[in-house]
Amino acid sequence: MTTYKRMVLASRPKGVVSPQNFRLEEVQAPALKDGEVLIRNHYLSLDPYMRMRMEDVKSYAAPQAIGETMIGGTVGEVVESKNPKYAVGDKVQGMLGWSEMGVSDGVMLRKLDTTHVPLSAYLGSVGMPGMTAWYGLTQIMQPKEGETIVVSAASGAVGSVVGQLAKLRGCRAVGIAGGKEKCDYVVNELGFDACVDYKAGNLVDDLARATPNGIDAVFENVGGTIFDECVARMNPFGRIALCGLIAGYDGEPMALNNVRNILTMRLTMRGFIVSEHMDLWPQGLKELGTLVATGKLKFRESVAQGLESAPEAFIGMLKGKNFGKQLVKLV
Amino acid sequence: MTTYKRMVLASRPKGVVSPQNFRLEEVQAPALKDGEVLIRNHYLSLDPYMRMRMEDVKSYAAPQAIGETMIGGTVGEVVESKNPKYAVGDKVQGMLGWSEMGVSDGVMLRKLDTTHVPLSAYLGSVGMPGMTAWYGLTQIMQPKEGETIVVSAASGAVGSVVGQLAKLRGCRAVGIAGGKEKCDYVVNELGFDACVDYKAGNLVDDLARATPNGIDAVFENVGGTIFDECVARMNPFGRIALCGLIAGYDGEPMALNNVRNILTMRLTMRGFIVSEHMDLWPQGLKELGTLVATGKLKFRESVAQGLESAPEAFIGMLKGKNFGKQLVKLV
Repeated sequence: MTTYKRMVLASRPKGVVSPQNFRLEEVQAPALKDGEVLIRNHYLSLDPYMRMRMEDVKSYAAPQAIGETMIGGTVGEVVESKNPKYAVGDKVQGMLGWSEMGVSDGVMLRKLDTTHVPLSAYLGSVGMPGMTAWYGLTQIMQPKEGETIVVSAASGAVGSVVGQLAKLRGCRAVGIAGGKEKCDYVVNELGFDACVDYKAGNLVDDLARATPNGIDAVFENVGGTIFDECVARMNPFGRIALCGLIAGYDGEPMALNNVRNILTMRLTMRGFIVSEHMDLWPQGLKELGTLVATGKLKFRESVAQGLESAPEAFIGMLKGKNFGKQLVKLV
Repeated sequence: MTTYKRMVLASRPKGVVSPQNFRLEEVQAPALKDGEVLIRNHYLSLDPYMRMRMEDVKSYAAPQAIGETMIGGTVGEVVESKNPKYAVGDKVQGMLGWSEMGVSDGVMLRKLDTTHVPLSAYLGSVGMPGMTAWYGLTQIMQPKEGETIVVSAASGAVGSVVGQLAKLRGCRAVGIAGGKEKCDYVVNELGFDACVDYKAGNLVDDLARATPNGIDAVFENVGGTIFDECVARMNPFGRIALCGLIAGYDGEPMALNNVRNILTMRLTMRGFIVSEHMDLWPQGLKELGTLVATGKLKFRESVAQGLESAPEAFIGMLKGKNFGKQLVKLV
């Protein structure tokens, strides 16, 4: 009998997430029914959206249930199959959660080609985070050559792709990140034109220096003061892709003080969830996969070892301790 | 020699606008050059946007200059012409400001047909306020039949048109206005489905009762608490046309506290200035003119008598003392 470990939500966080909100369980793999496959997960993706799902509030998705496996994207390998579309050994991507193994009926699985793209990248630049960047940039920000775009959390899994795609489209790409090391990486390795260190204490002046012609489009992951200062520098008809408000995920007050600029500068702000736009995934993933395979889209990963380390890695990511895409290696 | 009165900006307001910010002057009508016309203004339009122009801040338009005639839309009659396109007696609309007379080179003038539409309506439902409503509704809110739309300042020149146009498109139209008299007018005379009196002290509950299926699109004129409560009730993929933030025009802090809902409900918010979309005016004015001429679009006017009364009428309008479109009758 095969057993595996999974991490369930033990309780909802009161403010900051704590390790006590999670509980590790050992369970037995069920016998497969016709059409099902058993998958051993190699990597689990940790993403900020999970923080919102831990709350019991009205949102775009049902809250994560207490006592159930934490939701999450995974990549892994088919180890048993009663589905003719999947053979043992196939590499697949799915939403099997914080778990070493999982059963799928094959509907939400995607078969992966790891010839030119590493398996883990399908959870990052060639997966949901990459598509999030691609959708926000191409569908909402719609940057024209020569325009200035700004993205917060610029060294992260989403932000890093936003800036690199904007550069490929002839834009001035400016990142915002926390600390000199991340900012150096964003400019020197990812090729952004500038990166503002919001921890350096001169956000307003540094942002002004980095965006001498103002800002035409913003990809917002953080919210709060950083977002307000970006809105204050926007040019007429600017576009804002609102992807995340990580600064408010623990329940902190989260206001947009510069709402007046939305009016006076005739800005457009749009919130979005990339999973609602599956029709565009083939187009986006094709571009992203090609760029990664040819080395034109760079990324970095922070890899925590073993499912036991997932809560600590997740809590660290919410505080910005990760550097690049946060993963958990499960085998 | 013809003389006339005009009202100039004497000083910029510090907080609330006061009568001392204006100065009445008597000036001589200049001799016309070739191509010019002299116009006697019959009505001056008073509009909230003028408050923003009195400030010396970065905005969509240059600030109103000190010592110059206050800007403003006017309708009147040609009394002298050296322009072959305009004859003495022609009724025209222009931007001749807070002034009994004005000279135009004809470029920004529009000849008016007052057979079926009264002259003053060209400053209201068939003018800039009407077009503001039409643009925000048709281009940004894009309501579908059966959807619920909410408009603040619902008894005003813009809001009253938004709701009536929405009703004609099969929507549930809900207004927000200050006081029972205005709310009764909005429902009983304009035909909205409901109107919430924000002065009654039960904004949250009353808005919930008026919008049992949530809100699909908002036309925002006010900002502040009222706006936040609307955003809190919006359905997924809702649209917000941001037209004005009158609650913050005197420099009060003006934040959007519910910015998180923009993300979780995937809302789109867009600020706009109708004068930047002149290409759509013929289409919009045709619909609005037909509706007014056939009695299907109702409106009310508050008419102050004489240019001397303009500052007090303007200050009152900013406080919501007017009822319907605020005009000043000049002859």
